[in-house]
Amino acid sequence: MSLQNRQVLLVRRPEGTLRKDSFTVVTTELSEELAPGEILVRNRFLSVDPYQRLLAGGGDTFTQPAPLGAPMPGWAAGEVMASRDPKLSVGDKVVSYLGWQLFGICRGEQARKVGLRGLPLPAYLGVAGMPGVTAYLGTFDIGRPKAGETVVVSAAAGAVGGIVGQLARMHGCRVVGIAGGPAKCRHVVEDLGFAAAADYKAGDLPGDLRKSAPEGIDVYFDSVGGAVLEAVLPLLNPFARIVLCGHISTYDRPESPIPSGWEFLLSRRVRLEGFIVGDRLDRWPEALGRLERWAVEGKLRYEETIVEGLENAPGALPQLFQGKSLGKLVVAI
Amino acid sequence: MSLQNRQVLLVRRPEGTLRKDSFTVVTTELSEELAPGEILVRNRFLSVDPYQRLLAGGGDTFTQPAPLGAPMPGWAAGEVMASRDPKLSVGDKVVSYLGWQLFGICRGEQARKVGLRGLPLPAYLGVAGMPGVTAYLGTFDIGRPKAGETVVVSAAAGAVGGIVGQLARMHGCRVVGIAGGPAKCRHVVEDLGFAAAADYKAGDLPGDLRKSAPEGIDVYFDSVGGAVLEAVLPLLNPFARIVLCGHISTYDRPESPIPSGWEFLLSRRVRLEGFIVGDRLDRWPEALGRLERWAVEGKLRYEETIVEGLENAPGALPQLFQGKSLGKLVVAI
Repeated sequence: MSLQNRQVLLVRRPEGTLRKDSFTVVTTELSEELAPGEILVRNRFLSVDPYQRLLAGGGDTFTQPAPLGAPMPGWAAGEVMASRDPKLSVGDKVVSYLGWQLFGICRGEQARKVGLRGLPLPAYLGVAGMPGVTAYLGTFDIGRPKAGETVVVSAAAGAVGGIVGQLARMHGCRVVGIAGGPAKCRHVVEDLGFAAAADYKAGDLPGDLRKSAPEGIDVYFDSVGGAVLEAVLPLLNPFARIVLCGHISTYDRPESPIPSGWEFLLSRRVRLEGFIVGDRLDRWPEALGRLERWAVEGKLRYEETIVEGLENAPGALPQLFQGKSLGKLVVAI
Repeated sequence: MSLQNRQVLLVRRPEGTLRKDSFTVVTTELSEELAPGEILVRNRFLSVDPYQRLLAGGGDTFTQPAPLGAPMPGWAAGEVMASRDPKLSVGDKVVSYLGWQLFGICRGEQARKVGLRGLPLPAYLGVAGMPGVTAYLGTFDIGRPKAGETVVVSAAAGAVGGIVGQLARMHGCRVVGIAGGPAKCRHVVEDLGFAAAADYKAGDLPGDLRKSAPEGIDVYFDSVGGAVLEAVLPLLNPFARIVLCGHISTYDRPESPIPSGWEFLLSRRVRLEGFIVGDRLDRWPEALGRLERWAVEGKLRYEETIVEGLENAPGALPQLFQGKSLGKLVVAI
């Protein structure tokens, strides 16, 4: 027995700006035959995350580049359709790394059963998934803010940044978000409870940031790099920490120069640490447990931007680098 | 009673390349009258260190800029001429922060009595002084190399770099030095026991470094920044550490761009830490005790470049940025 699968293949490595023509959507046959321990999953939501741009690009990255001609690797949330793993039953909701396709087969232990506490399925790709864990571990294990310190987070209205800021606020920090445009800035202050927001599109980020963080910056959670980082560096307090979690402003422009301000890393005795959440799998259970509980209790707010249809996944990823989405970007399929 | 003092004053902040005309040498009167607890010191050796360029420049730095019209701040080694501190006697050898002058008065507890184990006086400004402590704490507290790892150190023939490499070698690491010119490269391999050296003046540092560090770089002790850092970044292994101790290649050019390669800090999950030795005074006694012992026992080798005459101190500091000195640069007065 086999079923008709739909897959989004990576067919062309982007050079410069990522465009949807790096991908193609194909129909393939998938044998439903399962080996012992395997499950068949019908994906319902595909996760769209910035690191996928790096995997598509094939340059220096923290893991293997995405192979050409194969489904785009990525997180997905779905439903078990058939199971030869005694721990998982038909109908169970699972998060897996099956990538951008309608159906997929993996071993049961490669899927995480979710939804027991009642969050909607896409939340397990966001607040209670990899982005949430990134925010949690990046903040507490790498940034290590103390109550009363000023924490600045870039991409503050995004899937990771929004959680970082709320976690730091709950921890007793003064949180300043950097986001693009008045709507996002309003969102992080009014909906997420940040103390202030600075709009990087408003034309004077260094000045606005200085006003928003009058006592300087103790922890900077950096997902964007580039000019935003440049504005942050002179405001760092001695012994500040930079959680280097991404540099999305340069993903489409690999040759872009590093921002100036290197000298501040020394003079302020900054600790900067490149951070990849997959390195710390032992810390995921604690993070996931707390994030899910706080989200269920309403202590952590989260937003989603939902794109409809697998055939629109290729156009969704570029949106991340155009600042078009709010919160977690997922594709419903 | 007063005596004739000779002082090197900072009179002009350097813009761009530091030149000796930023300083002037003057004769002044110094009252010999001591308050209780004070000592009068006759300096014998003035320490010439890269950070003094930052202090002279007056820009963003880790401490107050050097005041104009006052003696250039700095370490000095000398002899107690008069004492109202019961712990110090006339003739004692001391290291203090009295700066670039022939005589000076300070409180006894601001001077460190040295020479009890018989190292020559200038060594207490180098291997058994601030540069040695910088090497020791930067290596072990910040870089934290493990035996078998590859440690690369820039300015390898300098006061700090030469000690860093020897300490890492004693710790069981494979050490590669970066230095300018064949004589310095030979020195770090043959005299200091480094496994290899790469000559940044030879024209292909990235390639030479790759050959010298075939298994990649686990710890980079960076005193120079700039193009040398740029050559190192792509060779960093996952979870590498950068001890950011200086960036002397840019001290004369504050507007110089940061080297490219920022992306490697994330993809290799690098921990980079700005490090100023003065932040860790509690760790100095351990470091000084061991460094002095190892130097006395001959386990740590050290070189000195000695410039004669206080009036030549202004020309000595620029030498550091021209790569003209080997080991610790001091002015004998």
